[in-house]
Amino acid sequence: MHTAQIDALLEYEVRGPTHFLFNLEAALHEAHQLVQERLTITPSVNVRHFCDARNGNRFFRLDASKGLLSVNYHAQLQLQVAPLPLQLDETPVSALPDEVLRYLLSSRYCESDTLSRASQQLFGQLPPGLARVRAIEGWIHDSIAYLPGFSNASTTAQDVFVQRAGVCRDFAHLGITLCRALNIPARLVVGYVYFDEPPQDFHALFEAWLDGRWVLFDPTRMAPVDRLVRVGTGRDAKDVAFATMFGDVQMLRKELVVEQGDLPPDPAGAQPPALTQVTA
Amino acid sequence: MHTAQIDALLEYEVRGPTHFLFNLEAALHEAHQLVQERLTITPSVNVRHFCDARNGNRFFRLDASKGLLSVNYHAQLQLQVAPLPLQLDETPVSALPDEVLRYLLSSRYCESDTLSRASQQLFGQLPPGLARVRAIEGWIHDSIAYLPGFSNASTTAQDVFVQRAGVCRDFAHLGITLCRALNIPARLVVGYVYFDEPPQDFHALFEAWLDGRWVLFDPTRMAPVDRLVRVGTGRDAKDVAFATMFGDVQMLRKELVVEQGDLPPDPAGAQPPALTQVTA
Amino acid sequence: MHTAQIDALLEYEVRGPTHFLFNLEAALHEAHQLVQERLTITPSVNVRHFCDARNGNRFFRLDASKGLLSVNYHAQLQLQVAPLPLQLDETPVSALPDEVLRYLLSSRYCESDTLSRASQQLFGQLPPGLARVRAIEGWIHDSIAYLPGFSNASTTAQDVFVQRAGVCRDFAHLGITLCRALNIPARLVVGYVYFDEPPQDFHALFEAWLDGRWVLFDPTRMAPVDRLVRVGTGRDAKDVAFATMFGDVQMLRKELVVEQGDLPPDPAGAQPPALTQVTA
Amino acid sequence: MHTAQIDALLEYEVRGPTHFLFNLEAALHEAHQLVQERLTITPSVNVRHFCDARNGNRFFRLDASKGLLSVNYHAQLQLQVAPLPLQLDETPVSALPDEVLRYLLSSRYCESDTLSRASQQLFGQLPPGLARVRAIEGWIHDSIAYLPGFSNASTTAQDVFVQRAGVCRDFAHLGITLCRALNIPARLVVGYVYFDEPPQDFHALFEAWLDGRWVLFDPTRMAPVDRLVRVGTGRDAKDVAFATMFGDVQMLRKELVVEQGDLPPDPAGAQPPALTQVTA
Repeated sequence: MHTAQIDALLEYEVRGPTHFLFNLEAALHEAHQLVQERLTITPSVNVRHFCDARNGNRFFRLDASKGLLSVNYHAQLQLQVAPLPLQLDETPVSALPDEVLRYLLSSRYCESDTLSRASQQLFGQLPPGLARVRAIEGWIHDSIAYLPGFSNASTTAQDVFVQRAGVCRDFAHLGITLCRALNIPARLVVGYVYFDEPPQDFHALFEAWLDGRWVLFDPTRMAPVDRLVRVGTGRDAKDVAFATMFGDVQMLRKELVVEQGDLPPDPAGAQPPALTQVTA
Repeated sequence: MHTAQIDALLEYEVRGPTHFLFNLEAALHEAHQLVQERLTITPSVNVRHFCDARNGNRFFRLDASKGLLSVNYHAQLQLQVAPLPLQLDETPVSALPDEVLRYLLSSRYCESDTLSRASQQLFGQLPPGLARVRAIEGWIHDSIAYLPGFSNASTTAQDVFVQRAGVCRDFAHLGITLCRALNIPARLVVGYVYFDEPPQDFHALFEAWLDGRWVLFDPTRMAPVDRLVRVGTGRDAKDVAFATMFGDVQMLRKELVVEQGDLPPDPAGAQPPALTQVTA
Repeated sequence: MHTAQIDALLEYEVRGPTHFLFNLEAALHEAHQLVQERLTITPSVNVRHFCDARNGNRFFRLDASKGLLSVNYHAQLQLQVAPLPLQLDETPVSALPDEVLRYLLSSRYCESDTLSRASQQLFGQLPPGLARVRAIEGWIHDSIAYLPGFSNASTTAQDVFVQRAGVCRDFAHLGITLCRALNIPARLVVGYVYFDEPPQDFHALFEAWLDGRWVLFDPTRMAPVDRLVRVGTGRDAKDVAFATMFGDVQMLRKELVVEQGDLPPDPAGAQPPALTQVTA
Repeated sequence: MHTAQIDALLEYEVRGPTHFLFNLEAALHEAHQLVQERLTITPSVNVRHFCDARNGNRFFRLDASKGLLSVNYHAQLQLQVAPLPLQLDETPVSALPDEVLRYLLSSRYCESDTLSRASQQLFGQLPPGLARVRAIEGWIHDSIAYLPGFSNASTTAQDVFVQRAGVCRDFAHLGITLCRALNIPARLVVGYVYFDEPPQDFHALFEAWLDGRWVLFDPTRMAPVDRLVRVGTGRDAKDVAFATMFGDVQMLRKELVVEQGDLPPDPAGAQPPALTQVTA
């Protein structure tokens, strides 16, 4: 059993009335259990929370007026990741659950339609199953250079396939796209994980549907996938931006501290979470 | 009160085992009431139905083997469209319902991010509200030529904005995109409606969120929006394809018959629907 | 020594006053010698000829008024292609002739800038020289499906790299692009060549600069490159369209007959060409 | 009569053997006369000069090895710009000189094919001639925001038309594209001109063919076009990069000083230029 402690600090210069939508909090997800959580927003504003029942993403919204806005999210969690079998089959489309079908579709950043033949050509001959998605993950790792500055907010999987460079979300978008083109449902996952090499930042990975479950893959290999504290799950990065601003705003600061450790199994069971929200 | 009678026939040559996902049936939606409905599939196969609770889209799935597949959907409906007020305000983002926020995001066919400045430039100075979305609808009608052959399955709103030509779904995608760029939630609607000029075909429109409700717009002006029999509602055309095939298939035939009429108000209330499904 | 006989017929419905620019005639080029040539244009119009001194492309221009326009080009040629050495080095950029440098640049259809890393990744480790360009030619042949309908007049090398399908000029554009990305000058060549499989059509290939000369490559492998009757040479297809029309025109007919044979070496030397132009 | 004095300093960290191609020197062009010129390259290397006869662009090439490379170009010129008539007609395509036709074609950065309908829609109804190109110049000035950071080395006119932001070369590319789409030949011009607002930098404009001559337009309105010291003329920016490097290089410094003044007409005629090249 692992533990994780998150401390995320965002600071904005708000230049005019602005509505903020944040997706910063640990998701409702079976892979982790919240021990403690605290959200501190300065100055004090009304905060509305909602959760997307479909995937457990937790959002909060607020209105800020001119001035500084600071958002601090702190959380302690226990991670309980079930071990992955060595072998997993792909599920024939015909047997996919209805609600999983949507993850076969092209989306804003993942043009599985135009990349269909390329994916078939590269991976179509491999035996289906976990090993094939591992092959995609490995091919991206080997073929795409991790280079900040090559991509921006409108860079798509097709761009990344051409330019052969990007950052973690570009890697994930390409993985999703190559899977969907093979009729393997796939989607984006973002969250917190400790990186050996600084700076700490939000991380993006993808997961693919294999044998009746979602399985995480990280083509960047920047951190073990079972250490991830999941924040958002969606078709692609459009669904899970950590912050969306409607107004004239400048981000001044983004600081993440992620600490992770290992726990001996707790004989008495996990502690009940103690959740706190502070708006100071 | 209007009536509509739909007869849709699709025929496919199936060249190998294929999974089909159809979105052909009238949606669960307050704007119409089903009087009668019949789905006939030849040859006889198992059909699984499901409905997307979020927007009332009804899907059915089936597995077909080598040979001909014919799908015939027949429906009679009564349309009860509430009259539209002459004036409707835009809703500030801050006051948008949580579940409506998603319709502000860029999607596969609707790049409201890259077209943001263009939309602001063209429509940003107009007073917000129904009249502004009407201005968008009118601008598309005047600026985009209705020309089959200019667009294909990967044509996006940005392409249409550049090439100034397209078909109904291109018009709708551009309308959605220009709205979202102004922070007006917007989404695609597809369905059946009678065209004065043949051939009959599936139609695509868009709707925008104004004053707490979704309002339909049709930049093609091919038919009155209150005659539409809604089939699908989604972020863009990826969500509401009338047929998605996983296998080697050739469409042989697509024939739609749409008949529409007017009814005197029924004093005794609408008849209960009599739904029939036949797999012959 | 080979012989070639060309008969090209183009027919247009001209709907309003139109200026035509044609690039149909055999180029001025060392690889062939004109034996006979005849250009017949119906109805009779003034024809202005010019030749681009840089690459030997021959153009003719004419003004047509409403009605039918028919252009028939007939030519007999002898082809004298010097055998290619088995080994050819790449020329370091530093040693490239000034006038060859332009063929390193990105162009409308050949985005060697965005595909730079991809080409380096695929071919950067191969030993430089003829064998490396052969590897590019072979990779395109194996990776890109020859499929009419996937590309149109605005399809670029980047599109082809993504969609993995196209026709001869798409193959050639991709070859040019992958070469330029490795600092190997490359350009498009179009012309006539006999195809075993009908229909006959204009062909597009590419040539790369190796060891002080231009060397032809054909990733489609549809015909031997030494049988080509060269018509145009340029950065990409924009430079060498067989017909460019300024006006309202519909092409009614395009028929090519290409016959090719072998000649015993002529002891008395090649016959002087007898050129004829008829405007009937 | 105006005078101009240019001082351009470029410094590079060369990390491995690199070939440089520079287009920095005042072009051979009737609009200016060189009074004095000096090119200083440190360390001393062989420099090869060539001039593109087609448009008077002067290039120089050199090989640099590991270490610092500094290039300093100094020039004094007299500018003699003939006044522009108030009215100029467009030339029908049929009457365009053969060598001007190429400037009607789409190029890497100027997709006049895909933007054809948009340009026709915006400017097709205006009376042809100088005033129409002025309308294009004015529309770009009013519609496109001058915003560094929105565009990069692969941004094209189509991107600029969509995103409505860019820098001088983006403005020029869009002007070229909109002209070509109306069958007005147009091309890119780069050079030196004094900006009232720092920093000084290379400038990009476009020129269009009207009434038998090339006429300069500057949609940025950053400086009077008759003050320009022309360096390069080409289809688009690919043809006239001020520096192209083949090797591993980092630019350390780019400093331009441009001084401009007015001279009384010289009764005795312009002085003969005294050209100097120093490689120190």
